Amino acid sequence: MSVDVFAPAHRIAAQVRSGEVGAEVMARAFLDRIGRIDGKINAFTDVTAARALAQAAAIDRARAAGEPLGPLAGVPFAAKNLFDIEGLPTRAGSKINRERTPAWRDAVLIERLTAAGAVLIGGLNMGEYAYDFTGENVHDGPCRNPHDLSRMAGGSSSGSGAATAAGMAPISLGSDTNGSIRVPSSLCGVFGLKPTYGRLPRTRSFPFCDSLDHLGPFARDVTDLALAYDLLQGPDPHDPACAQRPVEPVSAQLTKGASGLRIAVAGGYFATDGLPEAAAAVGAVAQALGATRTVALDGAEIARAAAFLVTNAESAALHLGRLQLRADDFDPDTRDRFLAGAMLPAAWYIQAQRARRWFHDQMMRTFEEVDLIIAPATPCPAPPIGQKVLEIRGQTLPLRPSLGLFTQPISCIGLPVAAVPVAGGGLPIGVQLIAAPWREDICLRAARALQEMTICSAEPPKGI
Amino acid sequence: MSVDVFAPAHRIAAQVRSGEVGAEVMARAFLDRIGRIDGKINAFTDVTAARALAQAAAIDRARAAGEPLGPLAGVPFAAKNLFDIEGLPTRAGSKINRERTPAWRDAVLIERLTAAGAVLIGGLNMGEYAYDFTGENVHDGPCRNPHDLSRMAGGSSSGSGAATAAGMAPISLGSDTNGSIRVPSSLCGVFGLKPTYGRLPRTRSFPFCDSLDHLGPFARDVTDLALAYDLLQGPDPHDPACAQRPVEPVSAQLTKGASGLRIAVAGGYFATDGLPEAAAAVGAVAQALGATRTVALDGAEIARAAAFLVTNAESAALHLGRLQLRADDFDPDTRDRFLAGAMLPAAWYIQAQRARRWFHDQMMRTFEEVDLIIAPATPCPAPPIGQKVLEIRGQTLPLRPSLGLFTQPISCIGLPVAAVPVAGGGLPIGVQLIAAPWREDICLRAARALQEMTICSAEPPKGI
Repeated sequence: MSVDVFAPAHRIAAQVRSGEVGAEVMARAFLDRIGRIDGKINAFTDVTAARALAQAAAIDRARAAGEPLGPLAGVPFAAKNLFDIEGLPTRAGSKINRERTPAWRDAVLIERLTAAGAVLIGGLNMGEYAYDFTGENVHDGPCRNPHDLSRMAGGSSSGSGAATAAGMAPISLGSDTNGSIRVPSSLCGVFGLKPTYGRLPRTRSFPFCDSLDHLGPFARDVTDLALAYDLLQGPDPHDPACAQRPVEPVSAQLTKGASGLRIAVAGGYFATDGLPEAAAAVGAVAQALGATRTVALDGAEIARAAAFLVTNAESAALHLGRLQLRADDFDPDTRDRFLAGAMLPAAWYIQAQRARRWFHDQMMRTFEEVDLIIAPATPCPAPPIGQKVLEIRGQTLPLRPSLGLFTQPISCIGLPVAAVPVAGGGLPIGVQLIAAPWREDICLRAARALQEMTICSAEPPKGI
Repeated sequence: MSVDVFAPAHRIAAQVRSGEVGAEVMARAFLDRIGRIDGKINAFTDVTAARALAQAAAIDRARAAGEPLGPLAGVPFAAKNLFDIEGLPTRAGSKINRERTPAWRDAVLIERLTAAGAVLIGGLNMGEYAYDFTGENVHDGPCRNPHDLSRMAGGSSSGSGAATAAGMAPISLGSDTNGSIRVPSSLCGVFGLKPTYGRLPRTRSFPFCDSLDHLGPFARDVTDLALAYDLLQGPDPHDPACAQRPVEPVSAQLTKGASGLRIAVAGGYFATDGLPEAAAAVGAVAQALGATRTVALDGAEIARAAAFLVTNAESAALHLGRLQLRADDFDPDTRDRFLAGAMLPAAWYIQAQRARRWFHDQMMRTFEEVDLIIAPATPCPAPPIGQKVLEIRGQTLPLRPSLGLFTQPISCIGLPVAAVPVAGGGLPIGVQLIAAPWREDICLRAARALQEMTICSAEPPKGI
């Protein structure tokens, strides 16, 4: 029985559970694929082969002994290298951090997937200290897009998007502060979930900007995404931002589909400032879901400006010591952004936090009338690596911040979003399905409906 | 029947309810007293005589008609002039604000006391924009201490402390950001309650520093303080910081006294950095309550530094426009503090907010072992008006910020505090009774016990 590395995680789990494929055989198949193709893609910075094979062998023994297996038993997964992995320094995409003491214990989210039987196969490339939308990294080299190796994977969870897209990990973990799950999901053509702020604990992951940092999963299949999310849910006392609310599993809700939901398309600059590919993707999703109305999202520009300021100020505060002592060891581009943040006045930061509360209140009123909002995830498909500018409506904009044009205002107020890849001929591009706080179920029900209608799918990259 | 202006509010309410004294007679008695003595004290900036007499007459008519009266029917009260009073500009101690459009509606807390039958008789002097501990105000003149007219009333709720101490208002309202209820309570010798942050709504009051601003009552009697607090309680959707929690009345709890409470005295600099009068007051309270152990409050200095930074940065952000356009219309001392705040870097503010969360977590562990902490309210009794320095442990410190030495770390993390006046021969001085969040009942039970033991009491000022 040969292993299909593009099979969904739930099918891989079923194969392992039934004995059709052993967990060790499964792990070796993925490790082999990483060994064969990752030299071209550069998604992994660490491959935890020994750990993976030991865990897989234990699963096979447990199965042979008739012991119960977890719901993801034998399913390989990988995590952005800002998640603590026991025994490895948590590099967070930086040069400086790899001198750290190796982590003594896995991040909580890695522990939860591991407890469900999933097999960690490695740590993934990312933009330095997560301050990135491109997936370019001067220390580890750029993570390349599996659909076109000359193009960006998107960032900052570049390796998460690329590894899952390329059949190297059916599930991966990433983080999203301003779009770092949704941008690589869009450019690499996979599903990604940025949950509500405060829903998944960030314990033992390296932070970027505390009041905006979210963690979440990537997958090539909506059922897998929901299953992973359910296993990741639950409070943790060591993340003060993590709400003490009970787990509300969504997997059983998926079959409800999108019927009965009040669905609208984002207007304002969301409707005008993307390339034609972005507009076409939104149009296809809107048509499939029967969305006819538009909501303006007034104030999104203000929210985006607030997200820039808050990110800049909080991340500069976090890195102040390193900026003072190790300035030369940063990527010069990242360093310059942090230094700018170190000089922001407190009054601007406070005003930005007020703007966030204001936009949140605005959007809560919108959610009295709609359940789901459709918006583009990125203004364009994956640009070539090294590209510095983007043309939007005749204006030449800097590419790096512009990739977050549509994602920043949404994470600014912590709304849950599923990024879904729209099927089509050329390069992939994604769409955001946005719901009110704590309504991940709505995002995922709509994503599942779109997958069933074959409007959305994670197509295997050609030629890799 | 002559009116005793030093009678407790609950006795005044009983007199009005029984018909022993009419509400209008009562209101006139207090308005007369204000007219007679406030020229010397300067506690009131506005006297709302017409409104008071109209409301009092309505109460008398209602009583004559056999209609039910509210629990505070006929009790005069007054409010710091940062509370909106319908028809008056909300000056907040400033020159600039008195050009504002008159308020169209009372502050929520004034509405609540008015709904309970209490009769608003005026707006009270305060430090400019509440950035003050002395009660000196260059626009309205200093509020003088009723116990010694050459001395400070304390600030910023100077008029609230002085009016209640001098028998001009049995209940008054003030605000406390770093100590502005507790400092004038201590210097004027009255009871004051700074509730838990987020417990009483601040709707339609002029802010100072959003993440630290609290409102609360003053009284000359603990039963009155608890009664007023119960009537002020309840969420309001227009103050985003106000918790949506049900009202938990404390008045019925008071008779429990302090027995069964685990009580400790604050150590560290709380034990060493006050003048002998402060130490003696703490000692008397500790002995009366049988407190033998000490808790260190490690990190209080850090919390105080954080409170300084957060206050400075948030208030500067609030006043930025006025600083740019009307700099000459500020008190020069206040303006210089705001200007300094406008230049603080965001990274310092963010670090200060982190320090607050850290100290909060520290103190929550302390509250696993103790229910109530006794600390001085001010390092000294009322200093002479105009005094600029304070000698503490041989060091000459600037007086103005030093008056908040013991109050700032406590409000920094939003703990509830009753400030209680310790009975003694000379100038009054107060003690803080500090409990865990949402445990105002514990503060007030201990305050009531101390009043019954005659350890604490609001003595009528001599010669006024």
